[in-house]
Amino acid sequence: MQELQDSNPNAALAMKCTVQKDKLADAVNRVMKAISSKTTIPILTGVKITSGRDGITLTGSNSDISIQTFIPLEEDGNENAVVHTPGQIVLPSRLFSELVRKLQDEDVHIEVDSRFIAKITSGATEFSLNGLDPEEYPNLPIINGSDAFRIRKDLLKDMIKQTVYAVSVTETRPVLTGVKWMINDGKLSCVATDSHRLAQRSVSVENGEDSGTHTLVIPGSSLNELSKILDDDDEQLVDIIMTTNQILFKSNNVQFYSRLLDGNYPDTSRLIPTESKTTIDLGTKDLYRAIERASLLAKEERNNVVKLRAEGNQVEISSQSLELGRVFETLVPEHFEGEPLRISFSAKFMMDALGKLDAQSVRIHFVGPMRPIIIRPIGDENILMLILPIRTF
Amino acid sequence: MQELQDSNPNAALAMKCTVQKDKLADAVNRVMKAISSKTTIPILTGVKITSGRDGITLTGSNSDISIQTFIPLEEDGNENAVVHTPGQIVLPSRLFSELVRKLQDEDVHIEVDSRFIAKITSGATEFSLNGLDPEEYPNLPIINGSDAFRIRKDLLKDMIKQTVYAVSVTETRPVLTGVKWMINDGKLSCVATDSHRLAQRSVSVENGEDSGTHTLVIPGSSLNELSKILDDDDEQLVDIIMTTNQILFKSNNVQFYSRLLDGNYPDTSRLIPTESKTTIDLGTKDLYRAIERASLLAKEERNNVVKLRAEGNQVEISSQSLELGRVFETLVPEHFEGEPLRISFSAKFMMDALGKLDAQSVRIHFVGPMRPIIIRPIGDENILMLILPIRTF
Repeated sequence: MQELQDSNPNAALAMKCTVQKDKLADAVNRVMKAISSKTTIPILTGVKITSGRDGITLTGSNSDISIQTFIPLEEDGNENAVVHTPGQIVLPSRLFSELVRKLQDEDVHIEVDSRFIAKITSGATEFSLNGLDPEEYPNLPIINGSDAFRIRKDLLKDMIKQTVYAVSVTETRPVLTGVKWMINDGKLSCVATDSHRLAQRSVSVENGEDSGTHTLVIPGSSLNELSKILDDDDEQLVDIIMTTNQILFKSNNVQFYSRLLDGNYPDTSRLIPTESKTTIDLGTKDLYRAIERASLLAKEERNNVVKLRAEGNQVEISSQSLELGRVFETLVPEHFEGEPLRISFSAKFMMDALGKLDAQSVRIHFVGPMRPIIIRPIGDENILMLILPIRTF
Repeated sequence: MQELQDSNPNAALAMKCTVQKDKLADAVNRVMKAISSKTTIPILTGVKITSGRDGITLTGSNSDISIQTFIPLEEDGNENAVVHTPGQIVLPSRLFSELVRKLQDEDVHIEVDSRFIAKITSGATEFSLNGLDPEEYPNLPIINGSDAFRIRKDLLKDMIKQTVYAVSVTETRPVLTGVKWMINDGKLSCVATDSHRLAQRSVSVENGEDSGTHTLVIPGSSLNELSKILDDDDEQLVDIIMTTNQILFKSNNVQFYSRLLDGNYPDTSRLIPTESKTTIDLGTKDLYRAIERASLLAKEERNNVVKLRAEGNQVEISSQSLELGRVFETLVPEHFEGEPLRISFSAKFMMDALGKLDAQSVRIHFVGPMRPIIIRPIGDENILMLILPIRTF
């Protein structure tokens, strides 16, 4: 019954290791985020496994990002893996990741012969997988710049969340599909815009003074994937290293590479009005929910536009659909200053912005019915969201 | 700012009530299961709301099933609703259900005028929804048969789960898209088959002796929806009332109507072999997982067929893909009796059957490589699953 073991007794051993199932499943799961099944380069549908002296490295890549995870032989006094014969192999990634997840035994043994056939055994399971030549796998970019800084993981995740939603999803101006990062004098400022809305946030970073002044544009899709693979160990620092066309994020045993976008990012500072004719403070959640309900009708009319009327210390959100009906929401602002106002805007854009803010209350500045609306969380001057109104009145 | 309230002061009041938000949301959610947005009868896209003397009734319907939920004015000493003016209205169901779910206040006030415009207010939210004439809503079937029996809710759910997966999904023989129910002598027997596999289960029911002998075929889709709307109060009894073309399930404040399928259901008893040449007892989960892993390769080959070899008190599950590789799973049976065996079958069909069984172990009977395979949970003679093998050896 043991046909597998007898099938190629003479093929030389190219790699042999044993890995803890959970460690392997976790590592594969992370590198999978960089692997696309739609790639035109066959070897990039695979995951590269390298068994070395210190541990086992997994690599996944597409044209935009590459992810590498490292499983050290030992960690906190526990044994994660044993390398019997160092070597490497590229295995079909989707199949390998499903298989590892579904194994029942704690240990996974991987044995690769010179014909790139990997025998994977675990408990009473024996898989024989046809692999690919690891020599054909492209090399990752070499990044050993001194242009580096550090940021806390939770702050990095917040920065991404609060800016990346505003990038452009069309390719008309490719540079707008990215988030602009400026590092200057110990401060990181991020800004994204699709030319109908804008989000910006700044934060102090460590080692930033040594790293000089840099401006780079990171693809929004890369930042989304990065956010997904960063674990919840929030207080940990992430090392960020920059070159002219690549950026590398290092955290724990994960390395995340992204290419940078070419092209000049527009100057966005002139878009942001400095004056304010009407200023309203509102509870973030109350406003979000009122717009969400008004949007139930507004979205049936395709454009998803709601109206806001502010007058006499009362704010009214409304929308209507000829076919279905009308809705009015009344809100009492925490603070109201300036002229009465009527303005219309996209319910989706306002909800996108409000939904990214943790502050209990927001301050909204209006300059007029056709000028940009500025939303700021009360108590944090480092965050600014902007949306353009829509002409309906 | 209160434009809604002033908009039609002269229209007569057609209905007025106040309902607890959570009760309303729950009731709407259940009737939504019967409402299809694709219906060709416009009024059936709506939910019918009837305010009566005892409470509020919601109705949703399509051509196959109708669901009615009732919110009593009082329940366990708590006030659920107040009816100020009895009456009825049909409201756009998807919008109404989303709206109710998103309201912030505890109470929902509904006020309908004679032009079928419903004003829905809750907290600072004012919705005005265009409704439809409730007189145009079709009547539900009138069912007051004495042909009735009762069954515990958890048993009913199990019966459905363990049979409905085997119904046919194609319309070549419409009667096979349903599950056959036979009530006879205090016993309910259910059977489903798509002619490649079969599932049957029987159970004792209450009041069954009085209800005579009945055979009916219930659409599989109706049973799936029924299972979803039955809550988790497992020990409660469900009343089941039958007519020649309808069946009604009554549980708590929910009534579920389904049409029955016409046509003669084939006699399935002759499909089930009575002899056995090889009998194997295996752990249900171990077998399920071994087949699931083998299926990782098998499903890449489209047909998703795995092989089983039983010999010398060892069972081997295997599959292979020319492109990807091979897999062997070894299982040690708890009991083995009879001839050595090689047989192939659909991994999906076997997993579908095993996944419905709660028993720790299963007994599998084989008559030969081209005869039906019988799977029974050990310790429960009321359940039988059958799958046909596939010729590959």
